[in-house]
Amino acid sequence: MKKEKRNVIVGQSGGPTAAINSSLAGVFRTAIDRGYKKVYGMIHGIQGFMEDDGRYIDLSEHIQSGLDAELLKRTPSAYLGSCRYKLPDIHEDRDLYEKIFKMLDSLEIDCFIYIGGNDSMDTIKKLSDYAIITGSDIRFVGCPKTIDNDLALTDHTPGFGSAAKYIGTSVKEIIRDGWSLETAHGQVIIVEVMGRNAGWLTGASALAKGEDCDGPDAIYLPELPFDPDKFLDKVENLLAKKPVVVIAVSEGIKTAEGTYVSELANDLSYQDAFGHKQLTGTARYLCDLVSGKFQCKTRCIELSSLQRAASHCASRVDILEAYEVGGAAMKAADEGDSGKMVVIQRLSDDPYQAGTEVKDVHKIANDERLVPREWINEEGTYVTNEFITYVRPLIQGDVAPVMVDGIPRHLYKPGYQNLL
Amino acid sequence: MKKEKRNVIVGQSGGPTAAINSSLAGVFRTAIDRGYKKVYGMIHGIQGFMEDDGRYIDLSEHIQSGLDAELLKRTPSAYLGSCRYKLPDIHEDRDLYEKIFKMLDSLEIDCFIYIGGNDSMDTIKKLSDYAIITGSDIRFVGCPKTIDNDLALTDHTPGFGSAAKYIGTSVKEIIRDGWSLETAHGQVIIVEVMGRNAGWLTGASALAKGEDCDGPDAIYLPELPFDPDKFLDKVENLLAKKPVVVIAVSEGIKTAEGTYVSELANDLSYQDAFGHKQLTGTARYLCDLVSGKFQCKTRCIELSSLQRAASHCASRVDILEAYEVGGAAMKAADEGDSGKMVVIQRLSDDPYQAGTEVKDVHKIANDERLVPREWINEEGTYVTNEFITYVRPLIQGDVAPVMVDGIPRHLYKPGYQNLL
Repeated sequence: MKKEKRNVIVGQSGGPTAAINSSLAGVFRTAIDRGYKKVYGMIHGIQGFMEDDGRYIDLSEHIQSGLDAELLKRTPSAYLGSCRYKLPDIHEDRDLYEKIFKMLDSLEIDCFIYIGGNDSMDTIKKLSDYAIITGSDIRFVGCPKTIDNDLALTDHTPGFGSAAKYIGTSVKEIIRDGWSLETAHGQVIIVEVMGRNAGWLTGASALAKGEDCDGPDAIYLPELPFDPDKFLDKVENLLAKKPVVVIAVSEGIKTAEGTYVSELANDLSYQDAFGHKQLTGTARYLCDLVSGKFQCKTRCIELSSLQRAASHCASRVDILEAYEVGGAAMKAADEGDSGKMVVIQRLSDDPYQAGTEVKDVHKIANDERLVPREWINEEGTYVTNEFITYVRPLIQGDVAPVMVDGIPRHLYKPGYQNLL
Repeated sequence: MKKEKRNVIVGQSGGPTAAINSSLAGVFRTAIDRGYKKVYGMIHGIQGFMEDDGRYIDLSEHIQSGLDAELLKRTPSAYLGSCRYKLPDIHEDRDLYEKIFKMLDSLEIDCFIYIGGNDSMDTIKKLSDYAIITGSDIRFVGCPKTIDNDLALTDHTPGFGSAAKYIGTSVKEIIRDGWSLETAHGQVIIVEVMGRNAGWLTGASALAKGEDCDGPDAIYLPELPFDPDKFLDKVENLLAKKPVVVIAVSEGIKTAEGTYVSELANDLSYQDAFGHKQLTGTARYLCDLVSGKFQCKTRCIELSSLQRAASHCASRVDILEAYEVGGAAMKAADEGDSGKMVVIQRLSDDPYQAGTEVKDVHKIANDERLVPREWINEEGTYVTNEFITYVRPLIQGDVAPVMVDGIPRHLYKPGYQNLL
């Protein structure tokens, strides 16, 4: 006799994006469609779930209608709250794992879906390993998410397309703005884009380039060592040719010696639980360098959290794929997969076609996918046409915000914020 | 016998906005409709026009179709290029005025329209005064534009509504983003908004507040002296109540002694031709203050030129009003007005109704309109409902960008950029 389906739990982890809630909507919809009774949401991921009482909600109280689901798809950030928490290895703290599984059992969980990036897939790997060791039949499946687009094995990650669309759009507007003012002595505008090790987002600034815009004049990705002297030479050459120079840099660019450019500027460095340094001030430092050398006007613009939260400028392809990937993760878990992650496989660029597949999470975790060297020009100052061909399909189409009183509406239920 | 209509010249001046090109489209359309032969555009305003050869273009080569006009309305920044140039007083340099009028005469100009803010209206005043003195029958009319909304006599200025909509939308997304991460020790996010003396834009961050968002937790406008100690007390109180505190500050806040907060941080200060200091670093300084005192995580976000260039998030009311005001300025000049500026008069808040009027520019120039004290709460940390009632109608409706390959298209004609 077939076992009766019980409950699902889903969590969100890592940096928020404009698309991560669309995946949550997808998981919820597929879980309900496939006959699960309850869909619980962990508050602040596995970290909140492990707290004394176990922080979680019943998602059906939050997604009560089709309109709620549509609002959730248009709500940036992590609806359930996120965390940056790294589970210890199993042998380091078996008690912790025992506690988690006891809680999952008491909630009658069959499927555990975790939406996140590299660090989150590490959580799926460890929990699914523990399930094998202990003979638990709970299935653990990861759903990819990161604006950084640095997950291995998948063609791209949900969240990246919307951030890329926002960056391309904003950099184009910044370039136009720069053109407007008379600048006898030249002006250099440096835009700082997120990306610790991977330059996908910074490269996306080239999307500004088109029939009506030059695009940025130079792009510096963290994949290549950054040479301040060569950078200044480049700026000098550009200033000789045009009055306003716009340059996009990744927050994570480093010198050949491995020093972050942002560290050259200050010694403040906040580290998160994974030992990642908070990088900021790269553009500011470079602006100081440029204005000191060329006595020209500079402006540094950090896209900061705007670039990952700009649901008002989301890509339709991205939001729909995030939804599909959430559904695919739920489907995989329902059909018995565990220790797996859903990935997106591209079938063709033009017309763009892609589908989902399921891969072993052990092959993925902590493996960062960087921009290939051949997609960066020889000088190391721009992305190639191949890069654009890759990114362009991911920014297509819009998701019209639900405007209320002139401002986009997000999903919010009474008491929601107190949950976080 | 009625004199035959000849030509029009139009210029753009001061900081660019998302709506200034819509006014340009309005001037062009009304000039053509009213039978003028040519509509010239000054490149980089009066400053470019005064250069040896007189920099200008024939606008009909740039606005060749209805589609071009629609694209122009959706193009941020100043299509003609802008300038920050202050004409000397007439008695200081009559030769200069003679030169300008000689050039205007050689182009057979009947009407001179200048789209700009306080400083630009000063230009209209001086040129129209000179016309009276010399008996020239060229008419000079100003068309208001500034994101700062600080022009006297007009209910509001085109450009403000779109910037306000962008700020409200972005601050709401920043707040959601802030909620997502677990922050045991609290997090303070400080958003820096443009506004040297007037707090209209910073106050607009309160538009984020609604049924689905708390809005910023505190707002500091430049209209009131800023007290760092009281600010820290406020932050302490807020952190005791909620894990993530979001504060909007104007770049122009000053201590009771008159020192810009941004100056407390650094002694770099770029001054433009009007003696305005470039203010930046206010949020950064306050973040350092907060993290030093409370050992909590902070994030400073400068909306920088994004807030004035975000055509992708423009307000429909704003773009249409900018177009109308451009047309009204042209109409006024055509009907014989000179030394005047078009203003917007509000007839009612709800339903929102407004019309244009023509006022004497001598009453306007260099008179900054600030947020009234009674529209700021007693503590000086938020705007009142009256403020919101005033701003809300100005952010209504959207102007769908013309999307090409996933990115908004702007108006661009072959060789356009070389003109600037």
